[in-house]
Amino acid sequence: MNNNEHGDVMQKIVSLAKRRGFIFPGSEIYGGLAGTYDYGPLGEMMRQNVMASWRDKFIKSRRDMYAVSAAILMNQKVWQATGHVDHFSDPLVECKKCKKRFRADQLPVPPPEGKCPECKGEFGEVRQFNMMLETKLGAVLDSSSTSYLRPETAQGIFVNFKNVVDSMQPKIPFGIAQIGKAFRNEITPRDFIFRLRELEQMEIEYFVHPDDWERHFEYWKDEMMEWMASIGLDMNKIHDVEIPDGERAHYSSRTIDFEFEYPFGQKELYGLAYRGDYDLSRHASSSGEKLEYRFQDEGGVQTFVPHVIEPTFGLDRTILALLVSAYREDGEGDDSRVYLALDPKIAPHKICVSPLLKNKPELVAKGEEVFAHLKAEFLDVVWDDNGNIGKRYRRQDEIGTPFCVVVDFDTLEKDDSVSIRHRDDGSQERVKIADLLEYFAQKFA
Amino acid sequence: MNNNEHGDVMQKIVSLAKRRGFIFPGSEIYGGLAGTYDYGPLGEMMRQNVMASWRDKFIKSRRDMYAVSAAILMNQKVWQATGHVDHFSDPLVECKKCKKRFRADQLPVPPPEGKCPECKGEFGEVRQFNMMLETKLGAVLDSSSTSYLRPETAQGIFVNFKNVVDSMQPKIPFGIAQIGKAFRNEITPRDFIFRLRELEQMEIEYFVHPDDWERHFEYWKDEMMEWMASIGLDMNKIHDVEIPDGERAHYSSRTIDFEFEYPFGQKELYGLAYRGDYDLSRHASSSGEKLEYRFQDEGGVQTFVPHVIEPTFGLDRTILALLVSAYREDGEGDDSRVYLALDPKIAPHKICVSPLLKNKPELVAKGEEVFAHLKAEFLDVVWDDNGNIGKRYRRQDEIGTPFCVVVDFDTLEKDDSVSIRHRDDGSQERVKIADLLEYFAQKFA
Repeated sequence: MNNNEHGDVMQKIVSLAKRRGFIFPGSEIYGGLAGTYDYGPLGEMMRQNVMASWRDKFIKSRRDMYAVSAAILMNQKVWQATGHVDHFSDPLVECKKCKKRFRADQLPVPPPEGKCPECKGEFGEVRQFNMMLETKLGAVLDSSSTSYLRPETAQGIFVNFKNVVDSMQPKIPFGIAQIGKAFRNEITPRDFIFRLRELEQMEIEYFVHPDDWERHFEYWKDEMMEWMASIGLDMNKIHDVEIPDGERAHYSSRTIDFEFEYPFGQKELYGLAYRGDYDLSRHASSSGEKLEYRFQDEGGVQTFVPHVIEPTFGLDRTILALLVSAYREDGEGDDSRVYLALDPKIAPHKICVSPLLKNKPELVAKGEEVFAHLKAEFLDVVWDDNGNIGKRYRRQDEIGTPFCVVVDFDTLEKDDSVSIRHRDDGSQERVKIADLLEYFAQKFA
Repeated sequence: MNNNEHGDVMQKIVSLAKRRGFIFPGSEIYGGLAGTYDYGPLGEMMRQNVMASWRDKFIKSRRDMYAVSAAILMNQKVWQATGHVDHFSDPLVECKKCKKRFRADQLPVPPPEGKCPECKGEFGEVRQFNMMLETKLGAVLDSSSTSYLRPETAQGIFVNFKNVVDSMQPKIPFGIAQIGKAFRNEITPRDFIFRLRELEQMEIEYFVHPDDWERHFEYWKDEMMEWMASIGLDMNKIHDVEIPDGERAHYSSRTIDFEFEYPFGQKELYGLAYRGDYDLSRHASSSGEKLEYRFQDEGGVQTFVPHVIEPTFGLDRTILALLVSAYREDGEGDDSRVYLALDPKIAPHKICVSPLLKNKPELVAKGEEVFAHLKAEFLDVVWDDNGNIGKRYRRQDEIGTPFCVVVDFDTLEKDDSVSIRHRDDGSQERVKIADLLEYFAQKFA
């Protein structure tokens, strides 16, 4: 595809997402709010499915993972200790003529050579713009009341390291996981839900013995890849990029970015970083608390500061990458259609149930029976009796429903079987109602 | 219990919650941050269980409910339209002597009669203190960049009403549900996770024909009660309080507060309010968008503004009320114990699996086998081989694990059965390993 077609796909996804109830611009009836989006009913179901899959793999099926949910608002000393107050910033320039502001490193030609892309005016000095959103807590407004909306979920984990170790007494290696919101005052939010001011992260801090980090790093790289494939991300569009010396954070001796080929370019999707003992040591020295791991072996009590492997996942970017991975068009003219080839695990609705005709009470009654039967078992089942059957298939295709079950006259008059129509190739087969639960249990296994 | 004992119970719950990994003070290693708490591993599992139960009952098992997840940051016009910018405030007084600030309506003796409870100084004027947390978005700091951390999740629903109706074409009556964070700059946060500055709400706005609201109100009252009982809240401690004329919001002709007997008094847990067309009408006139419902019947196209029934649930208050409902002490001396009589649906761990002795490899191997078998099916299963079996029971009692499965010598030498020990009455029974899945499936049904 050329650039126009790329832009086209993105536009089609944004428009489908709004029209079909996946993703709406935030505060839209009031003209929106830059950098915020709201998830509609189908988008929220996708979000829940992604989070459930993540929790199952990385938390619930494991014995070494502890989930926490820390407050978004944290004591400002947290962000002083981490360096965010001083250094979490992007380079900002203002046009002297039109007063518009830009992120200097994202301009086609950065200053001092570059001119304002809006009015060709000259830029002022580049200055550092802190991306943390600030607020004031309490009834007395002074510097002690300053708080920040956390710019990352990671610190909610490190700050709770001691409490988790003391209360759960985990054996090392172990991880602490968290899903939650983070906020960044992006100078130029852009690309739909890619660069947001309010975003959701799924993060793990995995604590290991310092001698073991390389082995664990490789292990987590594999685990991340396995999960990406399992939810239906297009693995041909994913690239693991080793961040070279000099471009990594100073405390990290290895970092991988997992980049994804979005329609607007190959950009970061997830990250995997070896952070050493940087965070625990900074927090220990700033807070005065001992943030260590102790254990008893033949040689007596051993104490060390664990090192950290950090796999981090953006939830909103996952949703966008899933939509990009799943978006398909096929057919011509009257046969043309758009469909989302979403994995059944992720699709908002797993099954759609319809009576062939809406105005035949016996079809509707039997359809309702089949619907209730399937919904009791699989929950994410939807009823659709609107319009003719071809239109219903198109409608379900567009929101990625993998299976459409239709109750027709053969169901009533012949062998109590229903038609099952498959989203991706449009093929149909007949399955007895009595066999439906097992049929779908296998499909969803 | 007298007041001292009440305080005692609260203190015991707070201390257990921290010691065993349910709930930690926010930013604790930095001296905390008033009005914030962090959920530790067991508290986070409870939260997830409560939310899953709520979603199953109110969203997934229904056909008329649409979930959304709106951004916390909204266009400031939202809060101008609702009146929050002008009126969402608490009465604040400052002591002229010690400069401490208090919520006037929570003082033992309110001003002008009352003196400062800290220093007996005189109070200044009572003034209205807005409880919304403010922040600034974007790189240009002027009044247009002001935003607020939403003080309630409800408006994220109303603002998306049109998008949900247009994309999902729901039949009335229908509801829109949301779980998410809200923020209130409480002058005096207090009572553990009862009055927080950062809290989580589970809310439904249920849209009905104006003529039908009374019937739906009764229906939702019953639904709420049914759910409360299903998660194990002590229904003897719950009171539905009709808010009388003159005390309700001006737009509401009926409101019920569900109050709970916390150790610190009978206070609000949930609410059920009939809000009429107040919200949709305000947003329609402020935004210029038509927020209506249209349908076709014999008489042609009918258009009306739906009326709203709002069931609202605080998640943190639910967790606290569940802990209060479940907290038990029994036995004397060496036999004394503390246990949490949590419903298996809500308990962090459903089953604990142990080998009777840690140093017998054949017991450990068989135990691991049973553990893997149960964990594959029920996920929330924990392994515990630490200390003697009596200590393990006490440890699991304290975190509310309903069943302890023990692999012992009879398992190996006799009939392949394990011991199952019940949390609440300490009784034990033997069940064959081959029957375990069915045994627990019935217990958890």
